[in-house]
Amino acid sequence: MDAEHVARAALARLAEPGDTAMGAALRVHGPHEVLRVLQADGPLPTEFRRRDPAGYRVRLGGPSAADDLATVARLGGRFVIPGDRHWPTQLDDLGDARPIGLWERGPVPVRHAALRSVAVVGSRAATDYGTYVTHELAHGLAGARWSVVSGGAYGIDGAAHRGSLSGGGPTVAVLACGIDVAYPRGHDRLLARIGETGTLVSELPPGCSPSRVRFVERNRVIAALSRGTVVVEAALRSGSLITARRARDLGRSVMGIPGPITAPHSAGVHQLLREEDTYLVTTPAEVVENVGLIGDDLAPRPQGPTRIWDRLPPETARVLEAVPPNHALDQHAIAKEAGTALATVAACLTDLESHGLVARETAATPQGDHHLWRRTAID
Amino acid sequence: MDAEHVARAALARLAEPGDTAMGAALRVHGPHEVLRVLQADGPLPTEFRRRDPAGYRVRLGGPSAADDLATVARLGGRFVIPGDRHWPTQLDDLGDARPIGLWERGPVPVRHAALRSVAVVGSRAATDYGTYVTHELAHGLAGARWSVVSGGAYGIDGAAHRGSLSGGGPTVAVLACGIDVAYPRGHDRLLARIGETGTLVSELPPGCSPSRVRFVERNRVIAALSRGTVVVEAALRSGSLITARRARDLGRSVMGIPGPITAPHSAGVHQLLREEDTYLVTTPAEVVENVGLIGDDLAPRPQGPTRIWDRLPPETARVLEAVPPNHALDQHAIAKEAGTALATVAACLTDLESHGLVARETAATPQGDHHLWRRTAID
Repeated sequence: MDAEHVARAALARLAEPGDTAMGAALRVHGPHEVLRVLQADGPLPTEFRRRDPAGYRVRLGGPSAADDLATVARLGGRFVIPGDRHWPTQLDDLGDARPIGLWERGPVPVRHAALRSVAVVGSRAATDYGTYVTHELAHGLAGARWSVVSGGAYGIDGAAHRGSLSGGGPTVAVLACGIDVAYPRGHDRLLARIGETGTLVSELPPGCSPSRVRFVERNRVIAALSRGTVVVEAALRSGSLITARRARDLGRSVMGIPGPITAPHSAGVHQLLREEDTYLVTTPAEVVENVGLIGDDLAPRPQGPTRIWDRLPPETARVLEAVPPNHALDQHAIAKEAGTALATVAACLTDLESHGLVARETAATPQGDHHLWRRTAID
Repeated sequence: MDAEHVARAALARLAEPGDTAMGAALRVHGPHEVLRVLQADGPLPTEFRRRDPAGYRVRLGGPSAADDLATVARLGGRFVIPGDRHWPTQLDDLGDARPIGLWERGPVPVRHAALRSVAVVGSRAATDYGTYVTHELAHGLAGARWSVVSGGAYGIDGAAHRGSLSGGGPTVAVLACGIDVAYPRGHDRLLARIGETGTLVSELPPGCSPSRVRFVERNRVIAALSRGTVVVEAALRSGSLITARRARDLGRSVMGIPGPITAPHSAGVHQLLREEDTYLVTTPAEVVENVGLIGDDLAPRPQGPTRIWDRLPPETARVLEAVPPNHALDQHAIAKEAGTALATVAACLTDLESHGLVARETAATPQGDHHLWRRTAID
């Protein structure tokens, strides 16, 4: 673990999620300098001028970054920060509200799980109708190889995770507490299952409890991670409407599943659906069609046709070009074609698969599974 | 009854609703000439070239125009034709598919009832949910002084008429049969009530039975008469979706009330709501807000701000200008101010009231009710 991870882990203990003063200071001065200034007793950089430094310094005596990093390592987890290979770069759209870092746990790095993902959110107090349609939607999305991002809460969130799991998909729970905290209590087994097959992720260090502001700020991470947000049941003024509007502000697709107009549980969804740039959806296919339009490019508003590989890192684009559209090749052949090291090719192929740009064909051989890769037609 | 009414009444016996060849011939040659040619045994004008004249001539021996006009007069009804003072000019948007004439019955001329109207349509096989929300919607629209136009059928149509009646509004049933035919049978009392307080209207002469094509063509009249169409429950491929799409083609507002996505009864509405230029609505106020935007001007697409009195006949506009916005006047004072005959002023005021441009205040006096008029703020 390098020094920048340690500094950011320490800062994640001092600042609350969504702290844009901290984000601005990090952008200008970097984590080492910001941490040094907070640990010293002097004045803060101008980016902090509206913040009372005591709010950060009162926490200086808490668990150390080394402790937190050790805890997450013991859980089999990781702490990823901007610039890491596994950093979900779509969070950079949050600007100075970008998380300082993400604590994650589970076999699928959040970057990979979230590249082809849809957020499915809604009320805690869901009806049977809401629970049922959420489960069906998430199940269908998993079947279409889209991961489902949600908040791990009771009601719609829980149905979204369960539906995704039942469809065999990796699901991402973005928590408003530490990734080792079973909250809500009644979801301890569900969260454990997500941690075993998908991803538990949080910007809060291990052991942290949820709070109202943490729930609200958590919603921006859900909105930013995924290509679109579907609201299933939401009363007027529900927090999931905030998630949806944040998603829209970020240029993501915003969708709603309608319900009876006689149900207060659907009133917020209907309000949302009456707004501009919101789409009524009733099936997984309609959701996929919708995020597919905006999806490949997470810019605030598509200005014109952008081919996805204009947005890929040059190395990944080179590997993609080496994968033929008409027949499948193994990674050795692709490495040769691209003139790229085998290890790099393997990593790039995983990335491209997450984007849905290449598809894997698996053949069982006496030497074990043999993978062949073929380009999918997307753009 | 003048000769043009008689000629059109006779032609209404010969042609089916929506016959654009007939419409084109009427436009070019006028009803007398078209009727003369059909009654003679010679070739038809070129507008008819795709039609077999036998299709019209086989009906020549049927009831005479005089019989039909006598029947409708006996019912207390009228036969109105394009150019009549009571002709609903919004039907002219149908072009050559405009009805040859309208047979109407009831105390409120369809022109007046429909000027400030919304069509509420949907499936015959409605659920309790659909029936309930339709009734509430129509009741609320009546309370806001909007008439409800529908097709008199079982299910949503019936709930729309009943809701409007319960809210005290005049409701318009556009029939696919003669206005003296109780169809469907089980709605004989409902249709009678509509005929007593609102309007029964049809382009089919008295005594005609409904048919599949008449139902379909009837929908274009519903769409064209009203400022917008609300679909409540409709399965995929429901006829009410055709009404809605015709309304959109005519530049009217198209709205839908959502329901559970698990209900096949709402699947057509959801499909409609996923199309462009369709609005999800949940309350009467949302419907009014919606038709209010497009409403005052029934042009296919509003090109820019149009003040409603730019569209009024000059005489009516002069009367409107004579009605003060800040206090109320009686019609004698308005006639004097406008320099217009009292009878004309009375007719214009009724028209303006239908538009929602003036409001009536009624004071009881020993000589009977005394009406004062005040301008409403609309544009």
